[in-house]
Amino acid sequence: MVREIIIIGSGAAGITAASSARKTDPDAKITVFTEDVDIAYSPCAIPWAIEGKIAWDIMVMHTPEHYSENKNINVLTRTKVDSVDDAAKTVTAGGRTYRYDSLIVATGGKVFMPQINGVGLDGVLVVRTVQDGKRIQSRLNNVKKVAVCGAGAIGLEMAVALLNLGKEVTVVEMMDQVLPRIADKDMADRVQKYLEDKGIKFVLGAPMQAVNGTDKVSGVAAGGRDYPCEMVILTTGVRANTDIPKQIGLDIGQLGAVVVSPTLQPYKRGRIVPDVFAAGDVIQLESAVMPGPTMSQLGSSAVRQGMVAGTNAAGGRALYGPVASPWVSVIGDIEIAGTGLSIGLAAWYGVEVICGMADGLTRARYDPDAKSMIVKVLADTASRRLIGAQIIAGEGATGRIDWLTSAIVSGMTAEDFLIRAENAYCPPTSMVKDVVISAVEDLCEKLK
Amino acid sequence: MVREIIIIGSGAAGITAASSARKTDPDAKITVFTEDVDIAYSPCAIPWAIEGKIAWDIMVMHTPEHYSENKNINVLTRTKVDSVDDAAKTVTAGGRTYRYDSLIVATGGKVFMPQINGVGLDGVLVVRTVQDGKRIQSRLNNVKKVAVCGAGAIGLEMAVALLNLGKEVTVVEMMDQVLPRIADKDMADRVQKYLEDKGIKFVLGAPMQAVNGTDKVSGVAAGGRDYPCEMVILTTGVRANTDIPKQIGLDIGQLGAVVVSPTLQPYKRGRIVPDVFAAGDVIQLESAVMPGPTMSQLGSSAVRQGMVAGTNAAGGRALYGPVASPWVSVIGDIEIAGTGLSIGLAAWYGVEVICGMADGLTRARYDPDAKSMIVKVLADTASRRLIGAQIIAGEGATGRIDWLTSAIVSGMTAEDFLIRAENAYCPPTSMVKDVVISAVEDLCEKLK
Repeated sequence: MVREIIIIGSGAAGITAASSARKTDPDAKITVFTEDVDIAYSPCAIPWAIEGKIAWDIMVMHTPEHYSENKNINVLTRTKVDSVDDAAKTVTAGGRTYRYDSLIVATGGKVFMPQINGVGLDGVLVVRTVQDGKRIQSRLNNVKKVAVCGAGAIGLEMAVALLNLGKEVTVVEMMDQVLPRIADKDMADRVQKYLEDKGIKFVLGAPMQAVNGTDKVSGVAAGGRDYPCEMVILTTGVRANTDIPKQIGLDIGQLGAVVVSPTLQPYKRGRIVPDVFAAGDVIQLESAVMPGPTMSQLGSSAVRQGMVAGTNAAGGRALYGPVASPWVSVIGDIEIAGTGLSIGLAAWYGVEVICGMADGLTRARYDPDAKSMIVKVLADTASRRLIGAQIIAGEGATGRIDWLTSAIVSGMTAEDFLIRAENAYCPPTSMVKDVVISAVEDLCEKLK
Repeated sequence: MVREIIIIGSGAAGITAASSARKTDPDAKITVFTEDVDIAYSPCAIPWAIEGKIAWDIMVMHTPEHYSENKNINVLTRTKVDSVDDAAKTVTAGGRTYRYDSLIVATGGKVFMPQINGVGLDGVLVVRTVQDGKRIQSRLNNVKKVAVCGAGAIGLEMAVALLNLGKEVTVVEMMDQVLPRIADKDMADRVQKYLEDKGIKFVLGAPMQAVNGTDKVSGVAAGGRDYPCEMVILTTGVRANTDIPKQIGLDIGQLGAVVVSPTLQPYKRGRIVPDVFAAGDVIQLESAVMPGPTMSQLGSSAVRQGMVAGTNAAGGRALYGPVASPWVSVIGDIEIAGTGLSIGLAAWYGVEVICGMADGLTRARYDPDAKSMIVKVLADTASRRLIGAQIIAGEGATGRIDWLTSAIVSGMTAEDFLIRAENAYCPPTSMVKDVVISAVEDLCEKLK
């Protein structure tokens, strides 16, 4: 009998789950439900497309027709799933009921909407889907001033894109730093300084109080002051979209997301739900750095999770490990990357940290193309293990943060890292002693 | 009483040892003996300087006067050490005897000179020191054809430099591939193809039989044929320079280099020699991948070893771990990097390997600056552990090979790597699933 697999959601997790299920079971009937219009795109590229650096149709990799014709996967766009009956093993969507043998919940995240006056005004926009991005782009012509609310990576990338389009950009952030939570203040302040020098204005430590305007946006009120603008872009973070999980009755964890097993199966009152899987921004994960839950909410994590959920849903065997959640963002000409715990994230676990830091170059000093690089590494004072790292560099941050991630998840102490430290070297790609190693040296000095 | 520290050798290991000893003991009397004229330079930059991309005085970081004035380190250049008396704790050099409390042997390597006719002819040159490099450069004017003998990384980098200077370059190599030993043939063949397309000629599987000529070079004979040229550059590899170690009576290991403890102390008939340390190309190391000895012979390794030897020689405490020896070389526009065992190196350990491979891009497919990237990963069939990797890429190979090195030395199986696989992602710095992860996926498929 043909296995029927239903996937709710067409983001990185959902669409990868569909492809992985197809790879595992060539005969399964696979159906994807999505409320979105476009599928198989990289939301990380939306700021580029808004800026006009790439065309919208280039960033969308495949159409539903492609999946239908090439992979025999049926993608139903603009289709909201109303409910799931996990006892009967059925999904109801658009008035019809579909049965499944395996269900994958990949409902993703929703942009957090602050409960303030004016948030529903014309001109208040979010950046989540291609449609969101096109909406922003179509309205920019008559806009001179934009307020970007939320100084996370997407907020800063949007701010740069809008600046490059000639807009006056003000970034409003509740916390007292950019990249809150994922980066430490000292590193974040360097990014902020760089963006201020480019001409972006920052209003930090200022909770948004209202969007001003009658019919349409005329400004935002934050931290007791008004900032005039004609457009407000909310980059206020993403919360797990748990509407369907809650309707099913899945266990929701401490971070407000679906708790899953290493096979990416959700629980119902502490017991695994048979034949149901979950992947992507809707789930919470175990930290690979400290015992406890964590959110990943990264495209790269969602893809891996989609592979595991899709493989298992189709009768294969795959596991998903605990995560350090390495991330990177290119903001203007600089790369900022991080992994594991920041000081702020460590504080959530009640953990005290010691930091090491080094600056240097991405290449040998005599290479005229060498860029500056700052590496910060964190250890916890009890175990002396490496628990996090952040890098700001003109190039090459990504591979180095993946290197540090690997060291961190292997449970190395700072001293052990140094004893075993090796870096590939040639003048045009690194210093003879990479700045990563210098940062750990500094950390070991401080641990003495 | 002031500690007297003597260091033999001023390469990356020796000069770093001197600086680390100074950092550990501000009062020690530190003396460096070297036969070289220049110190504190990066030999890896010599091809660049020959090509004229950088000036010679830029690649030499510091002069002996700098060390004397800023670090109170006495560097005696052009000074050969004649003998060491480890019982009396003295060094004899230039007819004088110097006593030491701690001795660091960092005598480095010597270019292997094939025992063939004509190797002493005018026009046969090596690339080891700045003086060697200047000698090559000064003679290039009247040279049209050059034979580079030895297709290792330095040989290929030299070949590109000479090609860029308008020379006709033939690379002669005994083995049937470029980058023998460190790279697998399939990866090496891609590099060879790239260089052939640029115009470099290769004569592989051809042991050098003679340098032809009467007073000066007129060609090389290899594999039964003659190749006319006016200059021969020997990049035939480096052997540990064990003259002084053998005179002391230090234990020499299976690979012809000095055996050391994790504190980088040499042995004499199986017992650690008190107050003597060794670092750099003169020592052999333990492999972090397979139980057994290995050579590193990398600038980055020498620097770390110099730090450990210098720290310990000055009364500090430092350890040096086993090595995977990650390396990278930029050859024309491509980066080639590797770590751990190649198929050839694995065969030395009697180990059978399975390979995984993937190609992709260094960035998201829609980034116009994305370059191609090929990643190969190796596991051994008995333990399923990752034991090696090689990357060819237009950019970004270095960080990724350091990432793989970290995973390899942590002893991960291929499957465990995949279960825990995470990569930092944003469109301008990687694909959402990095090619490294795709290569390990392919490996896991093959391990099934």
